[in-house]
Amino acid sequence: MADSHSPMDYAARQKKLAAALPSAGVDTLLVTHLPNVRYLCGFSGTAGVLLVAGSGRNAKCTFYTDGRYTQQAADEVQNAKIVITKKAAFTDACAAVARTSIKVLGFEADHLSYAAHRQLAGILRGKVRLKAVAGRVEELRLCKDAEEIGQIRASALVAASLFQAALGAIRAGVSENLVAGEMELQARRAGAEKMSFDTIVAAGPRSALPHGRASSQPVPGNGFIILDWGVILAGYCSDMTRTVHVGPVSAARRRMYEAVRAAQLASIESVRPGVTAGEVDRVGRDLLKKAGYGAYFTHSTGHGVGLEVHEAPRLAKDQSLKLAPGMVVTIEPGIYIPDEGGVRIEDMVLVTESGREVLTPTTKDLITL
Amino acid sequence: MADSHSPMDYAARQKKLAAALPSAGVDTLLVTHLPNVRYLCGFSGTAGVLLVAGSGRNAKCTFYTDGRYTQQAADEVQNAKIVITKKAAFTDACAAVARTSIKVLGFEADHLSYAAHRQLAGILRGKVRLKAVAGRVEELRLCKDAEEIGQIRASALVAASLFQAALGAIRAGVSENLVAGEMELQARRAGAEKMSFDTIVAAGPRSALPHGRASSQPVPGNGFIILDWGVILAGYCSDMTRTVHVGPVSAARRRMYEAVRAAQLASIESVRPGVTAGEVDRVGRDLLKKAGYGAYFTHSTGHGVGLEVHEAPRLAKDQSLKLAPGMVVTIEPGIYIPDEGGVRIEDMVLVTESGREVLTPTTKDLITL
Repeated sequence: MADSHSPMDYAARQKKLAAALPSAGVDTLLVTHLPNVRYLCGFSGTAGVLLVAGSGRNAKCTFYTDGRYTQQAADEVQNAKIVITKKAAFTDACAAVARTSIKVLGFEADHLSYAAHRQLAGILRGKVRLKAVAGRVEELRLCKDAEEIGQIRASALVAASLFQAALGAIRAGVSENLVAGEMELQARRAGAEKMSFDTIVAAGPRSALPHGRASSQPVPGNGFIILDWGVILAGYCSDMTRTVHVGPVSAARRRMYEAVRAAQLASIESVRPGVTAGEVDRVGRDLLKKAGYGAYFTHSTGHGVGLEVHEAPRLAKDQSLKLAPGMVVTIEPGIYIPDEGGVRIEDMVLVTESGREVLTPTTKDLITL
Repeated sequence: MADSHSPMDYAARQKKLAAALPSAGVDTLLVTHLPNVRYLCGFSGTAGVLLVAGSGRNAKCTFYTDGRYTQQAADEVQNAKIVITKKAAFTDACAAVARTSIKVLGFEADHLSYAAHRQLAGILRGKVRLKAVAGRVEELRLCKDAEEIGQIRASALVAASLFQAALGAIRAGVSENLVAGEMELQARRAGAEKMSFDTIVAAGPRSALPHGRASSQPVPGNGFIILDWGVILAGYCSDMTRTVHVGPVSAARRRMYEAVRAAQLASIESVRPGVTAGEVDRVGRDLLKKAGYGAYFTHSTGHGVGLEVHEAPRLAKDQSLKLAPGMVVTIEPGIYIPDEGGVRIEDMVLVTESGREVLTPTTKDLITL
């Protein structure tokens, strides 16, 4: 993965995490969730764990992986001692902990399986106390630093470039799969590592399914098509949605579309530092209620995007978390009317010091094909 | 996902699992691992849990999902009562268990997080005893039934059809990403839901990386290219590898290629009911050792394939599990010489009553481009 990109400041992230360990009641954290491992030391492979110890004002990190990743670890891992393990990285890292003077080892309770926790406890045999830790690295990841924002911006632009490929492929009778395929080929041409989730191409009545990933169904002669897609570029995800219409649009459908667009724009306008995630959800939801579509907006308004396509914060009813500069969220209200069809419009939005910046530049005028 | 395919016999699978519950010491199993949920009731979405209770000779199944999947659950779920939950399917299913007369509830220890286990225990508040259960559904999934074999066969044929797209795209200077993109577009054309893992296109010196997923690197004028890919078709995975060469092949490289081919054929020939997984590994590995490449074959010989692209059994050193009819495994020895390049050849092989059947029909002659 020799993509050229700005170097990430891993040392600063490790230091922040180490500084937070005492308040979590641990002296060392065993990081097993791979996006967290990548965030802290740069490793992008699929097997590796990171031990982060706080020592005074500095972090001391050790990264464990197996022989398949010797070269990749040497190329990617920053600011951590690299240990190539004979067996699985996880068990060998646990065995190494058992030989140290660590007193309280934190583990990522949301990401370690019950069985792996038992295995860890078995290896440590009471020599080290184990403590469940939740969300400490995720908290650091909430507000993106300048290098991350640069990568997310680039990822959003590549995603946006796929819309033209979709418009070129959509016509009555073509399978949803083929439309997705043309978008995915364009993603590869633009240098994406892969799609950030299963591409959604939901045509005609299937547009009423909020999760209608592309299928072998043909595009019908008249109806909405929801396209929801994103790419991963240098590790960072994008996520956007546009809805287009095939054939002449009825007045009722145009009204649906404009209601979603108005709600989406209103939620975007509400984004600024200090506003709660729940308020951003409420603003758009109220507009859809007033327009008579309240019952058809069946999901939350959005979510954070970064190294994972779904991460904190959640933009949903009553969420009290306050937005802050550096957060990147989606704003994606929708209306889904069974048997009739659906509309969703989604942008990625960066919270700035003074308000917001929309990262996905694609038009929201209703396109008919 | 209205792909036409043979109906799966979910009732038979549920019954087998229910019959195994007493020996696991539980009266009901909470199935949370999504491939296991799909195996037992057909649900292919991303949020749902299944409760399987053994009652006499029959299984009684209840499936929980949230409102996003109302339609999909109605379309897909077989032989289970469907409950649409107000909140998360997992917590609502746990709350339902707390109101029943279940005495001992099994949970999937390898798949439930430590935090989710704590949440489950909190909801049950001691009314129901919890017991860790490992691998019971996976054991059932080891030997594929006739409908599964039909689907896996179809998935392998779609995968094989992508090789031609790769050969058409490969030339010096083209990025690995573009080669992968052309393969993935062909997968969509052939009706695949998606790739079963990140497509590996590793050209020139990168072919020495066993996990060299496609990158922006261009194909060099002379060297091996490892292509390792698979698709998901109606839920079932395929996985295959071919290595081709760009430019004239040196005698040393031809020797490398032929050594891998001989080892792969020998391991395939050793597959039959009753042979151990370790023996299949040993047969090919010994040939590579004799040819002087022992140190360069740095991974195991293969793995099972089905609803997951990596599942039991493991074909690795000293594995004592005996192969049985209905198992589908990969055979994929390789040689990786740093800075020089690598070769891997992988087929999917079905264990039959009388021996084996190779499911991936693609030539293994060395193709030079």
